[in-house]
Amino acid sequence: MRDDHIISAKQLSRSDIEAVLDRAAEIADDPGAVADSKDGELLGLLFFEPSTRTKMSFTTAMKRLGGDTVDMGSVESSSVKKGESLADTVRVIEGYADALVLRHPSEGSAKLASDFVDVPVINAGDGAGQHPTQTLLDLYTIRENAGFDDLTIGIMGDLKYGRTVHSLAHALTNFDASQHFISPESLRLPRSVRYDLHEAGAQVREHTDLEDVLGTLDVLYVTRIQRERFPDENEYRQVAGEYRIDTELLERANDDLTVMHPLPRVDEIAPDVDGTEYATYFEQAHNGVPVRMALLEELL
Amino acid sequence: MRDDHIISAKQLSRSDIEAVLDRAAEIADDPGAVADSKDGELLGLLFFEPSTRTKMSFTTAMKRLGGDTVDMGSVESSSVKKGESLADTVRVIEGYADALVLRHPSEGSAKLASDFVDVPVINAGDGAGQHPTQTLLDLYTIRENAGFDDLTIGIMGDLKYGRTVHSLAHALTNFDASQHFISPESLRLPRSVRYDLHEAGAQVREHTDLEDVLGTLDVLYVTRIQRERFPDENEYRQVAGEYRIDTELLERANDDLTVMHPLPRVDEIAPDVDGTEYATYFEQAHNGVPVRMALLEELL
Amino acid sequence: MRDDHIISAKQLSRSDIEAVLDRAAEIADDPGAVADSKDGELLGLLFFEPSTRTKMSFTTAMKRLGGDTVDMGSVESSSVKKGESLADTVRVIEGYADALVLRHPSEGSAKLASDFVDVPVINAGDGAGQHPTQTLLDLYTIRENAGFDDLTIGIMGDLKYGRTVHSLAHALTNFDASQHFISPESLRLPRSVRYDLHEAGAQVREHTDLEDVLGTLDVLYVTRIQRERFPDENEYRQVAGEYRIDTELLERANDDLTVMHPLPRVDEIAPDVDGTEYATYFEQAHNGVPVRMALLEELL
Repeated sequence: MRDDHIISAKQLSRSDIEAVLDRAAEIADDPGAVADSKDGELLGLLFFEPSTRTKMSFTTAMKRLGGDTVDMGSVESSSVKKGESLADTVRVIEGYADALVLRHPSEGSAKLASDFVDVPVINAGDGAGQHPTQTLLDLYTIRENAGFDDLTIGIMGDLKYGRTVHSLAHALTNFDASQHFISPESLRLPRSVRYDLHEAGAQVREHTDLEDVLGTLDVLYVTRIQRERFPDENEYRQVAGEYRIDTELLERANDDLTVMHPLPRVDEIAPDVDGTEYATYFEQAHNGVPVRMALLEELL
Repeated sequence: MRDDHIISAKQLSRSDIEAVLDRAAEIADDPGAVADSKDGELLGLLFFEPSTRTKMSFTTAMKRLGGDTVDMGSVESSSVKKGESLADTVRVIEGYADALVLRHPSEGSAKLASDFVDVPVINAGDGAGQHPTQTLLDLYTIRENAGFDDLTIGIMGDLKYGRTVHSLAHALTNFDASQHFISPESLRLPRSVRYDLHEAGAQVREHTDLEDVLGTLDVLYVTRIQRERFPDENEYRQVAGEYRIDTELLERANDDLTVMHPLPRVDEIAPDVDGTEYATYFEQAHNGVPVRMALLEELL
Repeated sequence: MRDDHIISAKQLSRSDIEAVLDRAAEIADDPGAVADSKDGELLGLLFFEPSTRTKMSFTTAMKRLGGDTVDMGSVESSSVKKGESLADTVRVIEGYADALVLRHPSEGSAKLASDFVDVPVINAGDGAGQHPTQTLLDLYTIRENAGFDDLTIGIMGDLKYGRTVHSLAHALTNFDASQHFISPESLRLPRSVRYDLHEAGAQVREHTDLEDVLGTLDVLYVTRIQRERFPDENEYRQVAGEYRIDTELLERANDDLTVMHPLPRVDEIAPDVDGTEYATYFEQAHNGVPVRMALLEELL
C-alpha cells in the first residue's frame, strides 16, 4: 500500500490487507509500544454527516498513538453553510492537519478531496460508496475469530442498501471465502454488486431462509433492516421478525459460530445473545481502534 | 471508596468524602505534581443532555492530569437517534476509553450503564437523580470556606426540584451540620427527601423567610427559581423577588458568611454581591477541577 | 505588546505587529522548536457563533505548541440558554483555562469579557467589531508575498459590511501603504471608516471599476459579496458578476500580483485562478496557524 490515500476497500490487495491486520494485531497485543509514536501530529476530522462510533474510534486511535485531532464540527457550524465547495474546505483544512478523515453524503467525495490536497485522505464513508476502515475491522474480527482458511460466512439482512455489506463481500473475494447472502427478496444484493462479485471470482449463493445454511456457517454477519425501506409497517414487522437472531435459533448453529454486526443494532439480535460465546459485535466495534491505529501509523 | 463507579453521593461515607477532599486540596496546592499522571489515558464523555460547566470541568480535570478525552458529541449526531439502547452505546464506547462520564435525562441511567461495562462510570447527572461530583465540589467549597465543625447552613430557593440540593443535604448528614431550608411553600423540600434526611439523623428546619435565620448562617446556598415552575408570570416575579440576595440584605448576615450557588445564576444574586467577600460561587465552580482531578486520579 | 488581552487591531502598534510577524515567521520556519512549549496549558474556546477556520486554526496553533483546548461547545448546548450573562460565563470558564478565545455576535463583547477575568482574552470576532488575529494573518501574508515597502493594495467587494476589510485597512495605515477601494456604489466603505482612515493619515481612493487600478496593484484583496445584501436577485447577479476575478482578467495585472481572500469564497474568484501563481488565499488561511502560535506563545 502506498502511503497516500485510503479511499476504497477495492484498492487494497490481499497483501495490503494482511499487512494492516498483522500490524493491528501487534498493536492490540502491546499498545504501549506505540503510545508516543505520533506525538505532536494532528488528524483532521471532517464529518459532514453524523457519526458516533467511527468518529470516536478514529479519535481514540489517534490519541492512543500520542497524537491529537482537529475537528471541523458539525456542518451547521461550518463554512459549508456559506456555500463553500468541498474542494475549498479540504484545501483550507489541510493547513491544519497531517491527515484528513472524511465522511460525506456524496459518493465519490473522498476521491475528489484526495485530488485537491497533499496530505493523506481516509474515506470514513462517502454516501452509498465505500467505508474501507469498516471493512478492515470486519476482516480483522473474522480473522481473529474464525480465520480465513475454509471460511464459510453468511451475510444477512438488508443487502440492497448498505455499503458495509458490499464492501466486505468484495474484500472477501481476496480470500476465497464461501459467501452466503440471506435476505428477503426485496432486499437482496443489487445486480451490480452480484456482477462485481462474480467478476472477482466469487460464487454468490443467495437464500431467503437462514436455516438453509445456518449449520454450515463459521461467521454470521447480521445487518439492520431499516423501517424506512418499507412502505407498509406490517410488512416491515414481518420481515424484521424473520431475520432476527436469538439463542433458540442459534441452537442449530455451529458451537463456534461468530456472530457479527456493524452496529447500531435495534432488534436484529436479541439481547439474550449478548452473553453467549457467539456474540462478537462489541469486540468487533472495539477492533476499530487497533486497525485504525495501524493505518494511521502507516499513513502519517 | 472502591475504584469502580461513582453513581450516587449516597454511596460515599464520611471517610470517602474526606479522602477525596483532602486529595483535591493537595492537588489544588500543587497541580504540577500530577500534570503527567494520566498521560496516555482517555476519558469518554457521554452527555445525552446539554452541559457547559460540568463537561468543561471534567475535560479540564482530565487534561490537567495529562490525559485526554473522547467525546460522543451531541445526541443529534449519535447512533442514539437510530434507536440504539444505552446499554449498547456504553458497551461500544468502553472500547474507546479508560473511564466513562455519563449525563443522561433518565434517573437510574448511570447505574444501568455501570452494570454493562468493565471501566469505571461516573454519574454526571441522571435526570432528577444524582450528580455526586457536584456534591463533592460543594462540600469542598464549604470545607475550605467555613469548615464542617459547628456548621450552620441555609439552603434557599427551589428545594422541590433540583438534585443538587437534595444530594448536598443528604451528604451533609455525614457532618452533623445544622441545616435550614428556606423556600416558598410551593417549592419546599419533597416529603420523600425530608423523610430521607430524618432517617439519616438530620433535623430539617424549614422557613419561608430568609431573615429568620440569616444572622445565624455560616453558609448560604442559593439556587435558581425557574420561571417554568410557575403557571402565572406575576406569581413567579413576586416569589423570585422575595428570594433574591443583594448587598443591602447581606448587611444583616455574619461578616464571614459564604454565599454559594451551583450556577448558572439569573437574578437570584444581585451583581453587586460579586465584588464582596461573601461571593464564593465562581470559586465554587472552579473547585470542580481539583475535586474531579482527585476522583479521576483514584478511578483511572 | 503587553501580555494581557488582544481585543482590537487598533491596539497594535507597528512594532507590536512586526514583533508578532517576525516571531510567526521564525515558527513557520522551525515549528518543531516550539512543539512542547505550552505543554500542559489549556486554551478555552468560547464560540457563541459558528466558525470553522478560525476555531480550527486556534485549535491547531495551541496543539502545535504542545498545549490543548477546552471547548464550550455550541450555544445550544450551553448555559447561555438558561439566561446566564456573558460576564458570568467567562468568570466560570476562566477557572478551566489559561487563556480564552471569544467569538460573540455583539460588538464590544470581547472588551467586556476582558474586564471580568484575569486570564488573557483574545477577540476572535465580536459582531461588526474587530477580529484582530485575522488582520495579523492578512498582514503576515502581505509581508511574505509583497512586502510593506511601496505597497499598493486594492481591496475589493463588499466594503460596507465586513470587519475584516475595515480592520485590515486601518492596520495598513501603520505602513504607509497606498490603498485603493473597489466596490459598487451601494457597498462602498462607510463614512465612519473613511474618516478613521483619513485621521490615521491614509489617503482613501475609491473606484467602481477594478480595471482602473488593476495594473498598479501588488496585492488584490477580494471579499465576498453576499446575496442577502441585495433586495433584488437580478441586481445581486449583476454586481457579483462585475466584481469577479478570473484568469482572463488577470492578464491585465502585474505578473507578481498577490490575490488574497479571507474565505469562504463562493463565486468571487473563478476556480481557474487557483492553479496560478497569483492565488494566495489558501496559503493565507494556513498562515493563521504560525501567526496564532506566535500570539499564544506570547500571551500564555
